[in-house]
Amino acid sequence: MSGLTPYAKKHKVTIIGSGNWGSTIAKMVAESTAEHSDLFERDVQMWVYEEDVQLDEKSKHYKKSSETSQGPQKLTHIINTFHENVKYLPGIALPHNVIANPSLTDSVKDSSILIFNLPHQFILGLCKQLRGHILPYARGISCIKGVNVHESSIGLFSETIGEELGIYCGALSGANIASEVAQEKFSETTVAYDPPPIDSQAPTPATSQGPSPVSSHVDLTQLAHKDVTGRPSKVKLRPLPQEYQAIDHTTIKKLFHRRYFHVRVVSDVAGVSLGGALKNVVAVAAGWVDGLGWGDNAKAAIMRVGLLEMREFGNRFFPHTVNPDTFTVESAGVADLITTCSGGRNHRCAMLSIREGKSIEEIEARELNGQKLQGAMTAHEVNTFLKSQKAEKDFPLLTAVHNILKGNGKAEDLPDLIEPSE
Amino acid sequence: MSGLTPYAKKHKVTIIGSGNWGSTIAKMVAESTAEHSDLFERDVQMWVYEEDVQLDEKSKHYKKSSETSQGPQKLTHIINTFHENVKYLPGIALPHNVIANPSLTDSVKDSSILIFNLPHQFILGLCKQLRGHILPYARGISCIKGVNVHESSIGLFSETIGEELGIYCGALSGANIASEVAQEKFSETTVAYDPPPIDSQAPTPATSQGPSPVSSHVDLTQLAHKDVTGRPSKVKLRPLPQEYQAIDHTTIKKLFHRRYFHVRVVSDVAGVSLGGALKNVVAVAAGWVDGLGWGDNAKAAIMRVGLLEMREFGNRFFPHTVNPDTFTVESAGVADLITTCSGGRNHRCAMLSIREGKSIEEIEARELNGQKLQGAMTAHEVNTFLKSQKAEKDFPLLTAVHNILKGNGKAEDLPDLIEPSE
Repeated sequence: MSGLTPYAKKHKVTIIGSGNWGSTIAKMVAESTAEHSDLFERDVQMWVYEEDVQLDEKSKHYKKSSETSQGPQKLTHIINTFHENVKYLPGIALPHNVIANPSLTDSVKDSSILIFNLPHQFILGLCKQLRGHILPYARGISCIKGVNVHESSIGLFSETIGEELGIYCGALSGANIASEVAQEKFSETTVAYDPPPIDSQAPTPATSQGPSPVSSHVDLTQLAHKDVTGRPSKVKLRPLPQEYQAIDHTTIKKLFHRRYFHVRVVSDVAGVSLGGALKNVVAVAAGWVDGLGWGDNAKAAIMRVGLLEMREFGNRFFPHTVNPDTFTVESAGVADLITTCSGGRNHRCAMLSIREGKSIEEIEARELNGQKLQGAMTAHEVNTFLKSQKAEKDFPLLTAVHNILKGNGKAEDLPDLIEPSE
Repeated sequence: MSGLTPYAKKHKVTIIGSGNWGSTIAKMVAESTAEHSDLFERDVQMWVYEEDVQLDEKSKHYKKSSETSQGPQKLTHIINTFHENVKYLPGIALPHNVIANPSLTDSVKDSSILIFNLPHQFILGLCKQLRGHILPYARGISCIKGVNVHESSIGLFSETIGEELGIYCGALSGANIASEVAQEKFSETTVAYDPPPIDSQAPTPATSQGPSPVSSHVDLTQLAHKDVTGRPSKVKLRPLPQEYQAIDHTTIKKLFHRRYFHVRVVSDVAGVSLGGALKNVVAVAAGWVDGLGWGDNAKAAIMRVGLLEMREFGNRFFPHTVNPDTFTVESAGVADLITTCSGGRNHRCAMLSIREGKSIEEIEARELNGQKLQGAMTAHEVNTFLKSQKAEKDFPLLTAVHNILKGNGKAEDLPDLIEPSE
């Protein structure tokens, strides 16, 4: 995009969430808005859940602070003063155009692009607070990994956000260990963005003005059977005013792409989201294989079988929405699987459970400070869904991981358990 | 296949080659022939390039030997006496029905299935010796990895064997580190087998009776443009006599599949062979990234870009013969890539070259006992081919590896070098 093409309005961007990944995304987006100042407002808002933070006495910030400010300080104040999220992304300099804001509603004011980056359990409450405060024509990108598995249906977090706010929301996912990205070590990611065509005469939807009348849960497996593209049919999108540059794949790429963070923009939101969920189940199996000391062939075999089942899962349950390539050649698929099976907590806890002869619950209690292992939770949820679809036998690895976690099988038997029936 | 269905003739199997992979394949095949005695002759011939071997004084075989046999002995004698290839696969018990044979022509006598497992530079000479000594209706499987890259064309080793001997030859490749497979650690492999339809009235081809009049080099890129399946059009296959069970995917699977060695049989010989060649180039780049300490995201990104270029290479130059899935979901594709980028000499030498600040030639001279690094050789050959096709820019990673190896670029610049142009 040439700087010579003026737009009457520039896109204002807000990052909702400021954990390590949220702060990392804010860093990159702020670098991009400064670079593409013809398209974006330079300053990027980052909503921060406010808390008091005591600077470490050894930190350079502490030493530079005046005596009065050496007590506990607001996290937003620290970020805006020292340009570092000392609590959640310590040691990483944030661009000065990342503006920490403790007010959710103020942070999204006039923003045409909203980037969601917070734990998934907070989505509904957050959307409730946002209703009526966002631009009705805003667009969203969810950086929340995974999917919402129900007994007989699967929903996407981006869909929930879209339905709750009456906007379109895409998804970002990839082989992205936040600490490596923050240090500008080379990475790639996938952004899925595919808003439906808009009837420019459509009235403002009620959802942008008040409480949403629609369910927060989108049953995409049902949508799939109706030959739709996985987009929330219940939301009538408001067109973006013509004063703005269109928010298309080119604009999305400009917003996220850095020299050290390569972005591929695709249209398959469901595939990108499923990849981020199912890979954790495969990583548990890969961890067991490493714990057993079975070597590189075995680990690659388990990963390959997992990749095949991920693709089959998409093809089977989202036949009209998923592009199988998302799993096999995009960062959100095969690359994220490789990274997750190389390190990561799912792999590590599974490996330790074999090495120490302990249950995964014991390892998880010791290693994760009370958090539950994502791969184990997803394995159980996915198994419930597969049972409801009478499809367990067609996903032998996903099923085996669940059964072994439940004590109904042994990791040593994985080769037999995943052997396709003749 | 039920044991109740009798065949007048059973398939006799010969393994041609007895290195560590050849001996490992012989072990598995002999286990399979013993299990499926309705289809296969129990004894499996293994041709051994004869040499004198002195047993180690500490070995249990030495201690059990009579005094007269404690001097140097023939390798075939040692294998047939102790059921161990002490030189090339020490420590692994071979089934007693692996019969080492120093005579090439005797080893293939009456064999309907020939499994080729020797260094590729010996193929032509070996085929010359075999002509006139094999069953004219025999079928082959090549376990030789890689492809034969010429300046403006690419040939398959399995094709060369097929053309030279006037038979059909498939290919086996996968994430198969021989030592792990030999220890029965779980692995998978891919066998590609796709003989053309046979005109059962066809005369015996001259090639099975004497010197072949055809070129040993099959230009598959030319074949591809003629919309063929990559099979040697110049060979007229002899039908298998009806006394045998057909050699189809089911039979092939029975021959190789073990509980610890899962086999998927496909039809894409070209894809399986290309995967085994191109992965080594990607492994060099992955080794550099590990040498630079760039972390898991970066390594997964390089592997993903490599996988995409492998698939594109197949699609572009073998559009009618390659199945893109071979690269993305088969063991010979993505799994072999993962294994090769985890360990293996290409990855290791590239990593060391960065860590020690030395050229890859220096590392290769020190680490490989005078052998050349396969990934470096393939990178150069593939680059020559890509130049001839004016396609360098469409394969930025394959091109970057070549250029960096030649000193025309730095591994540190890989992210820029592989960035797709807008």
